[in-house]
Amino acid sequence: MNLTKKSFINGQWQATTGETFSNHNPVTNESITQYASATKTDAANAVIGARASFSAFKKLSGQERAAFLEQIAIEIEALGDDLLNTANDETGLGLVRLTGERGRTCNQIRAFANMLKDGSWVRATIDTADANRTPPKPDLRRMLRPIGPVLVFPASNFPLAFGVLGGDTASALAAGNPVVIKAHPAHPATSELCMIAAARALEKCNIASNTIAMVQGSTIELAQTLVANEDIQAVGFTGSLMAGRSIMDLAATRTTPIPVYAEMGSTNPVFITPDALAARGNEIANGLASSIAMGTGQFCTSPGVIVTLENSQFQKQLTDAINNAAQGYLLHPSIASGLKASVDSLLKNEKVEILAGTNLSEDSLKTPNSLITTSAQAFLTDNTLHVEAFGPISLLVNCKDEQELLAVANAIHGNLTATIHCQDNDALATPLAQLLEDHVGRLIINGYPTGVEVCASQQHSGPYPACSSPATTSVGSDAISRFARFIAYQDMPQNMLPIELQDKNSLQILRQINNDYQRSDI
Amino acid sequence: MNLTKKSFINGQWQATTGETFSNHNPVTNESITQYASATKTDAANAVIGARASFSAFKKLSGQERAAFLEQIAIEIEALGDDLLNTANDETGLGLVRLTGERGRTCNQIRAFANMLKDGSWVRATIDTADANRTPPKPDLRRMLRPIGPVLVFPASNFPLAFGVLGGDTASALAAGNPVVIKAHPAHPATSELCMIAAARALEKCNIASNTIAMVQGSTIELAQTLVANEDIQAVGFTGSLMAGRSIMDLAATRTTPIPVYAEMGSTNPVFITPDALAARGNEIANGLASSIAMGTGQFCTSPGVIVTLENSQFQKQLTDAINNAAQGYLLHPSIASGLKASVDSLLKNEKVEILAGTNLSEDSLKTPNSLITTSAQAFLTDNTLHVEAFGPISLLVNCKDEQELLAVANAIHGNLTATIHCQDNDALATPLAQLLEDHVGRLIINGYPTGVEVCASQQHSGPYPACSSPATTSVGSDAISRFARFIAYQDMPQNMLPIELQDKNSLQILRQINNDYQRSDI
Repeated sequence: MNLTKKSFINGQWQATTGETFSNHNPVTNESITQYASATKTDAANAVIGARASFSAFKKLSGQERAAFLEQIAIEIEALGDDLLNTANDETGLGLVRLTGERGRTCNQIRAFANMLKDGSWVRATIDTADANRTPPKPDLRRMLRPIGPVLVFPASNFPLAFGVLGGDTASALAAGNPVVIKAHPAHPATSELCMIAAARALEKCNIASNTIAMVQGSTIELAQTLVANEDIQAVGFTGSLMAGRSIMDLAATRTTPIPVYAEMGSTNPVFITPDALAARGNEIANGLASSIAMGTGQFCTSPGVIVTLENSQFQKQLTDAINNAAQGYLLHPSIASGLKASVDSLLKNEKVEILAGTNLSEDSLKTPNSLITTSAQAFLTDNTLHVEAFGPISLLVNCKDEQELLAVANAIHGNLTATIHCQDNDALATPLAQLLEDHVGRLIINGYPTGVEVCASQQHSGPYPACSSPATTSVGSDAISRFARFIAYQDMPQNMLPIELQDKNSLQILRQINNDYQRSDI
Repeated sequence: MNLTKKSFINGQWQATTGETFSNHNPVTNESITQYASATKTDAANAVIGARASFSAFKKLSGQERAAFLEQIAIEIEALGDDLLNTANDETGLGLVRLTGERGRTCNQIRAFANMLKDGSWVRATIDTADANRTPPKPDLRRMLRPIGPVLVFPASNFPLAFGVLGGDTASALAAGNPVVIKAHPAHPATSELCMIAAARALEKCNIASNTIAMVQGSTIELAQTLVANEDIQAVGFTGSLMAGRSIMDLAATRTTPIPVYAEMGSTNPVFITPDALAARGNEIANGLASSIAMGTGQFCTSPGVIVTLENSQFQKQLTDAINNAAQGYLLHPSIASGLKASVDSLLKNEKVEILAGTNLSEDSLKTPNSLITTSAQAFLTDNTLHVEAFGPISLLVNCKDEQELLAVANAIHGNLTATIHCQDNDALATPLAQLLEDHVGRLIINGYPTGVEVCASQQHSGPYPACSSPATTSVGSDAISRFARFIAYQDMPQNMLPIELQDKNSLQILRQINNDYQRSDI
């Protein structure tokens, strides 16, 4: 498919600048082609369009928004092999992984459509009037409503599932908001294809073309001008701590501060109890190596820290497994230079030893899987050892005894996940869980943190620095709540109320009425 | 009752400083007595104690936390007339109002206790495993869990309901969090009495005395050191925009930024359609005057802006009603000086005319009810006219026509509430509502914004500058969600899961299981 290599703003593919940036093939380690960078004016126009589209878009019924989301999924699939090949050129992730990721992307869009068709997600809550009370009790009805234009920063490591039409965009649209997407500069062609799919869906569903805009560009200034735009009501972001924190800081200093939902990754520590190590050490070593190498370690939930009692047999098993794991390509030269800086910093630490890998190439993005090790005492006293190194590397933390294992559990920073490998009735399991849950969004027993199920009970979040907003999730059904807010309607006549709050429960949704959950009419 | 005039830290009434501040009787306009200011070390110790208490407090069952909250309500009531008289001395609000407020305070504490006994508030969500799927689907279970020490800044205008044991403290405790309260310096005696009640409840329920701390003091530095303390996980605040924004800004610059739930007030515009004005002008004028004068205008939801088509009869009716409304006392000299500064600034504006009041006394806190007026054109072009003046004053905005009325609706800033007075099948009602809902937390039809019902469907919030966090509410059941976050447990054995997530639904709570809401066992 011929691409414009431009931005999609107010329904037009536009490029008002001579500035360009290029995408990159990780396998050949060569630039592919040039894309036009949007200007600050382009960015402002995208937001003006999104703002203008809001009053119409928010009036669509849940059924209409569901049909729109389903059309987006259909249009993504209709792009066929073009999308997969383009994404593979820009990411080197391979067609098997990308085919799976496309399925996941369409599934999560359809899951939001199903939520809209069900309708109960708005959490309708009604307290009926009581004129005889002193003072008289008003009729009060509350539900989640959209907030206005949402700014989305897709991630580099999931070009589809966290891409232009990934979870943030899908959930923001599902809630009824226009979206402005600042495409990730690592995969502008994949981004343009996704925007083409979205534009087709907008047209087929008769939705104004300014409801979704996509801005291409690689400069920090472009990102900043979008975050600072006072018509943007919230930001969704997936990426590095440095970039995420800078967006948080900028959003906090606006005239009108807005919420930033930034998922910034973590080290996802895996704790192995002595009983589990004795019973399943080799199996766990193999499972960990495969989890560390998966996606060339470029997952937010990659296990970057492993904590056990010191055990030379397990250490050898894990080292062997890491050495034997398949090697992949880093996504982009900037990720390679980031990983190199992280590894250099870790290896300068005299308390850290190399067990496998770490010899990063200067010429290729193909990357060895690495294992380094340190003592619990070093880990407990040196915060630099808690920092994520984004790539296929893990730090084995050796503890002297169970007390030290628990001390490490108590000392971990905010993380997306923690994992406990334990045996049945393992005396350490519950104390570990009690400590770890205070620091994570998801606690896994006898599994591996990679693989983030998309479902209602998923919590892809965690205390800072893993995320900016630990109470919310960026994966799973409840991601929609980030882009909605409650509005209460007091003594509003039936004909003015949203359908979800009228006496007659036409949609048959679950509602809380006078503190009782029910699907009845009033 | 003899008061210590000290802070309650780690179970002890402590004063390590020679610094003092004094409370003030608004009716006599005289200082009452001296209270010891806590030091930064006292504040740090309060947080250390709260942090230490968390692991035990979070393990209490919902039933146990409910019993604790109920005991707090009992202890508040057991303070008897001492509490009412003390609060009246410090606020001048009168015993009738304060008796009502005490009832509201105990009712809302008991409402949180009832939520805990019901148990469904944790929003338990379960997706069961499917080993046959490729890849195998894990078992994932998610619920709201406490976050750790919460810092509460009570308000001056509700010494009980938004006081030391007001909604923020009650909801933070209900969610399972220790609380550190920075008592409002306008009513330290009322605060100490409330803390005495809380300490008695802690003791009777065998809960560690460091679970709740109360720090007395009047300096900005004391507030800042608490907000900056890295062990504080969230802040609840009710007060002025200036103070709230400074807390938001400080929280955003911490090493670990935290959410600030600040309710900072608003002008609560009231729109009157021409049809409503013709049919009920005098009745609405009287209703507005009474709402403006209520609590000497010191309510977050006081109607500070009134928008109609220009109508000399209504203007006279409203002026007369305001002149006839009962006068009350401002709470504190600092509120009087704040109101005076706001009024001076408004009256300096040549587009503003006085209709009633505005002659504030220098010697007394007794305060006239005031009405000023301006044109829609002035209001639309001058942001200073949108700023809240905290006290019994309202700005009548005169519009030339319906288009201007709608333009004003589109231009209002973030507000807690907006109100529409309209007639049945009033053609202006729906367009007004569609515009206003984007700017407010609660939309009222044919009523008055003062009077905030405490119930599940209340939304006491709104876009900035009304609140820092428009998606959440500080009044009503859902206030508890501010101080909880979701945690997901993956493949966790039954004996390690919280009771709310176990297969057997022992508490009979509502749970979402594989996308279906039910109360069954698994």
